[in-house]
Amino acid sequence: MRMRRKKHLDERLEACDDVIISMYSEDRNFKTFDDKKNYLDTTEIFGNDNPLYLEIGCGKGSFATELALKNPGINILAVEKISNVIVEAAERARETGVKNLKFLLGPAEYLPRFIENKSISRIYLNFSCPYPKKRYASHRLTHSGFLEIYKKLMADGAEIHQKTDNAHFFEFSIEQFSQSGFKLKNVTFDLHGSGFEGNILTEYERRFLSEGCKIYRLVAYL
Amino acid sequence: MRMRRKKHLDERLEACDDVIISMYSEDRNFKTFDDKKNYLDTTEIFGNDNPLYLEIGCGKGSFATELALKNPGINILAVEKISNVIVEAAERARETGVKNLKFLLGPAEYLPRFIENKSISRIYLNFSCPYPKKRYASHRLTHSGFLEIYKKLMADGAEIHQKTDNAHFFEFSIEQFSQSGFKLKNVTFDLHGSGFEGNILTEYERRFLSEGCKIYRLVAYL
Repeated sequence: MRMRRKKHLDERLEACDDVIISMYSEDRNFKTFDDKKNYLDTTEIFGNDNPLYLEIGCGKGSFATELALKNPGINILAVEKISNVIVEAAERARETGVKNLKFLLGPAEYLPRFIENKSISRIYLNFSCPYPKKRYASHRLTHSGFLEIYKKLMADGAEIHQKTDNAHFFEFSIEQFSQSGFKLKNVTFDLHGSGFEGNILTEYERRFLSEGCKIYRLVAYL
Repeated sequence: MRMRRKKHLDERLEACDDVIISMYSEDRNFKTFDDKKNYLDTTEIFGNDNPLYLEIGCGKGSFATELALKNPGINILAVEKISNVIVEAAERARETGVKNLKFLLGPAEYLPRFIENKSISRIYLNFSCPYPKKRYASHRLTHSGFLEIYKKLMADGAEIHQKTDNAHFFEFSIEQFSQSGFKLKNVTFDLHGSGFEGNILTEYERRFLSEGCKIYRLVAYL
């Protein structure tokens, strides 16, 4: 049973190889580049030099897809480490015919191997896993270790847009951002009561809202 | 009627002149110092060189009084701009016999005229007025204008401890602190559910708690 599911997943991933870029090579190690081409060539991938946004942890991809469809002048790389999640996101995105969205399969820790320094104009962190236990704090996508990675990737004037429903994760994020030298703006403890316009709902957000949860949001910049 | 109340207040202030230091001179202008003594001589005022804490906006003073009684090795200056509020605080404090607490009558804007640079080890901002209207934002005690004043007063390693029940004021404060180069720690959206020990309740806090309100708290440092 497990083998059949796996085989099926590989077939689905292969069928999406025009929209999913994997960090892994065939032998399941991380891909490496030769000296001439150290990073993903996003100009070639997207066919233009438009500003590049990342969503890290895109889940089933509805946010990234809507963002891409609404902003044809922006290129979006949606990063997700779980292959059977990313395949569903990619299949759905393909159905919309969206051109400026690609998916990158692999963990955020390895982004600096694939993305050129100072090439990202915006990073979205939407409802990232809060890892509530303290001993897993370093796995949280706003842990200082990740923030140092984002700093390298961010172009001048770039921003990180974070949304979460988890109060403790948001408290932690505020501390980590400020301690890593980020400035914060548009901090709200109730996004949907804040008058913010143009919000794109994620799958999680839709559910949390229907349950009456408040959504926290901030924008971090250097 | 107004004159009698005023006269009565002046008498009460005079009776407390051993614990209340006024920023104002007899002619209602701000006091000035000669070249040899540019600031309040806190060593003379307290009779020792212990670390100096400020509470800005001390209200009726129960927080400052309890803080002083619990920490005899710290000197506390409780700042309040409203004279009939500070007089009540001073009268209550005197009854406890507390020695390491003095009151400073006047607006926070003028602290740099009275307090030496780099001489303050901690600043408390407890339930400061949130001034909800945007056009009064510059009056909020965490507005960048005030933060620049605090920066000058703060000794190396000093901290600002803020508590409030007002979500929008707390959002604003986080933004202003981070944008003024402060780092944040101990950020909580529910102080009384956070396991924080040693909290000293203010008058406001006692009331808000009894009404079931959550209390926000943070510590800012440079």
